[in-house]
Amino acid sequence: MKNFEFCVTTDILFGAGQESQLPEKLKAYGRKILLTYGGGSIKKTGLYDRLKALLNDFEIFELGGIAPNPKIESVREGAAICKKEGIDMILAVGGGSTIDCSKAIAAAACHDGDAWDLLLDMNNLTRALPVAVVLTIAATGSEMDAVAVISNDETGEKLPFFSPLLLPKVAVLNPENTYTVPPFQTASGAADIMSHVIENYFDREPALVPDAINEGLLRTVIACAPLALEQPSNYEARAQLMWASTLALNGLGSAGKNFAWSCHYIEHELSALYDITHGAGLAVLTPKWMRYILSDDTVDKFCDYAANVWGFRREEDKYALANRGIDATEAFFKSIGLPSTLTEFGIDDAMFETMAEKAVRIGSLSNAYVPLDERDVVRILRMSL
Amino acid sequence: MKNFEFCVTTDILFGAGQESQLPEKLKAYGRKILLTYGGGSIKKTGLYDRLKALLNDFEIFELGGIAPNPKIESVREGAAICKKEGIDMILAVGGGSTIDCSKAIAAAACHDGDAWDLLLDMNNLTRALPVAVVLTIAATGSEMDAVAVISNDETGEKLPFFSPLLLPKVAVLNPENTYTVPPFQTASGAADIMSHVIENYFDREPALVPDAINEGLLRTVIACAPLALEQPSNYEARAQLMWASTLALNGLGSAGKNFAWSCHYIEHELSALYDITHGAGLAVLTPKWMRYILSDDTVDKFCDYAANVWGFRREEDKYALANRGIDATEAFFKSIGLPSTLTEFGIDDAMFETMAEKAVRIGSLSNAYVPLDERDVVRILRMSL
Repeated sequence: MKNFEFCVTTDILFGAGQESQLPEKLKAYGRKILLTYGGGSIKKTGLYDRLKALLNDFEIFELGGIAPNPKIESVREGAAICKKEGIDMILAVGGGSTIDCSKAIAAAACHDGDAWDLLLDMNNLTRALPVAVVLTIAATGSEMDAVAVISNDETGEKLPFFSPLLLPKVAVLNPENTYTVPPFQTASGAADIMSHVIENYFDREPALVPDAINEGLLRTVIACAPLALEQPSNYEARAQLMWASTLALNGLGSAGKNFAWSCHYIEHELSALYDITHGAGLAVLTPKWMRYILSDDTVDKFCDYAANVWGFRREEDKYALANRGIDATEAFFKSIGLPSTLTEFGIDDAMFETMAEKAVRIGSLSNAYVPLDERDVVRILRMSL
Repeated sequence: MKNFEFCVTTDILFGAGQESQLPEKLKAYGRKILLTYGGGSIKKTGLYDRLKALLNDFEIFELGGIAPNPKIESVREGAAICKKEGIDMILAVGGGSTIDCSKAIAAAACHDGDAWDLLLDMNNLTRALPVAVVLTIAATGSEMDAVAVISNDETGEKLPFFSPLLLPKVAVLNPENTYTVPPFQTASGAADIMSHVIENYFDREPALVPDAINEGLLRTVIACAPLALEQPSNYEARAQLMWASTLALNGLGSAGKNFAWSCHYIEHELSALYDITHGAGLAVLTPKWMRYILSDDTVDKFCDYAANVWGFRREEDKYALANRGIDATEAFFKSIGLPSTLTEFGIDDAMFETMAEKAVRIGSLSNAYVPLDERDVVRILRMSL
C-alpha cells in the first residue's frame, strides 16, 4: 500500500428527483449560471425544461452542442461567455464530454491567456469557477473526479489535465436520467467503467481494500449492463451502473496503488484521430492488451481477476484460468453489442506508428503495469485490427 | 437503491510519515490547538513528542486522560479550555474514544449551555470548531464520519449524535502508529470494523455496489487481523485494517440502504453499564443476534454472507450454508482472542430488562433489519450469557 491522499469533496445527490435540491445547493455560489450540454438530447427528454423551471431564480446563460471527445473550441467559447457575462458557476448537464468541457471552461474562465496553453502547462491553473453536474450517462466518472480530457483537432492531440480545483462541487445522480441513453452508448459507458477499474486493478502494489472494491465494481457492471440493455427503464440496474461509474474513478480504486494505466492512453489516440466513442475503443483494446501482457510475471493477477471477477474456479493450470478471464472479458463486450476490432470502425494501420509514439509519450507508458514502448503499442494495435 | 446524499469532505493523509503534512494543513484553521489524547500511550510510543516538535509554530493546549467510552465530564472539561483559551481547532490523537470526545468538545465549545443538553437535542448544534485527527487504532471509523458517541455515568446513558459539522477536516492515517496497539485492542478493533460492515450489510434494499464493498471489507479484516496479531509491525496488514476501518463507516457501505442497525445499540447499553470494550462486546453479541434472526425471511442474505464473505460453496441446504457463515463468524472472533460470552466479562442477567428497554428506544430497533422489541433483545442477551 503506497502513501496517498484522498480528499473528494463532491456533494453527491443520488436518486430519483434529486434535481430538486439543486437551487438550494447552487445559491451558495452566486446567481449567474452557464448551463452546458451536448447534442440536445436533454431537450428531447424534457430534462432541459425541468431544470430551467427549477432554476428560475437564477440567470441562465447557455452553451450547447458540446461534442463527444470535447474540443478546445468549445472550451474557448464557454470561457468567453463566462468572462463577458461574469458567470458565477457552470452547471454541466450531460456525460463525461460535457462535464470535462465544463471543467476546462471553469479553469479557462479564470485564465488570461489561451485555454490550450492552460492545458499544456497545468501550473497556470490556479483558480476555477465552481462546477455542478446533472449526470445523464453512467460512464466516465467525471462527476466525482478532478480530471478533464480535451481534444485539439488542429494538433491532433487529446490531453488529460488534473487539478483539485476541477472537482465538481455538487453532482445530481438520478438514474432515471439515463433511461433514454441509446443501447450503444449504454454499452460503451459500461466498457468505460470497466476499463477504469481494470486500469486501477492491474498493478503490482498489494492492496486488498481497493482491489476488493475494484472486483465488486466489475461484478456490478457485468451483472447490470445487460439488464439495463434489456430493460432500459430498470431503475435498479441503472442505479447500480451509475454509482459504479462514479466510484470507479473517484480515487477509491486507486488509493494506495501506482498510477499504471495503459489502455486509456492508446485509446485517446484513436479517438483523437478517428473520433470514435471512447468506451467502444476501450472494449476493443482492453482484451488485446490483456493477451499481450499475460506472462509468468502477470499470470497470478490474471488468475485473481478470472476467479474473483468472473467466478471461475481456481485450478492447477494458471494460464488456462487467466485466459478464461480474458476470453470472458472479450465475450462480454461483444455480448453487449460493442465492436471487437478496429476494422469495424473502418480504422486501418496507417497511423499506428504515430499513435504509438504519442500514447507512449503522453501516457508515460514506460511506467505502466507492464511497461510498453512504441513497438509494444503497435503490436497491440495490430492485434486489434 | 434508496436515495442518498454522500458528501464526505475529510482530507485523508494515508501512510507512513504523513504527520509531516499536518502543519501545512492545520495552519488554515488558526494557531491555537487543543491536543486531545487518552491514557498516555502516545507518550510511551514517542508520537506525542514527534507531534509537539512538528507543531512548534502552533500554541498547544492539552486535554489528556480521555477514557474509553468517553464521558461527558471530559467533554465539559475540553469545552471549558476551548472557551477560556480561544482555541481555534482540536487535534485528536488516538482512537474512536478520543476522536468522539473531541467532536463533542468541538460542538460544546461553540454552545452556551451544558454539553449534555447539546447531545440530547441536536438542533442546538449549529457550529463546531474544526477537528483534525491522528489515528492510532483501526476500529471505529470516527476519523471519517460525522458521529460521536458519549457516555453519561450519572444517567447511565450512552448516546450517539450526528452532524456534518462534526466531520473531521483532516485525518492522518499512518499504519505505523498502530504497531503498538495491544493484541486485545487490535482484535476488538477488528470486531468493531466487522460489526459496522455487518450492520450495513444486513438490510433488505437491493444494493449491489455497497454490498460488494461491504463483502470486500469483511474479507480484508478476516485476512489481515490474524496477521496483525501475529506480526504487530506488519505494515501491509496494519495498512489494510486501517483503511478498512475508515471505509467501513464513512457512508460507502450504507449508501442507498436503510439504516437498520441492531447490535450496536444493544452493545452501547452493555458498555454504558459495565464499561466493557465496545468491539469485544460486539464480538459476543453479533453471532448470537445472527442466530436469533435467521429465518426463511433472512436465510438468503445469510447465504450471500456465507458464500461471498467466508467463501463457502453454495449448496442446496440454505440453512446449512447460513449456519456455516454464522459459525465461522463466531469461531473467527474466538480465534483472535475475543470473548464469546458475557459471563467472561462477569456480566449476569440482572440488568437485561433495563438495557433492552433503552436499546429498543434509543436505537429505534422496531426499524432494524429484523425488527426487535424488548423481549427479543432480552433473548439475545440471554443467548450471550
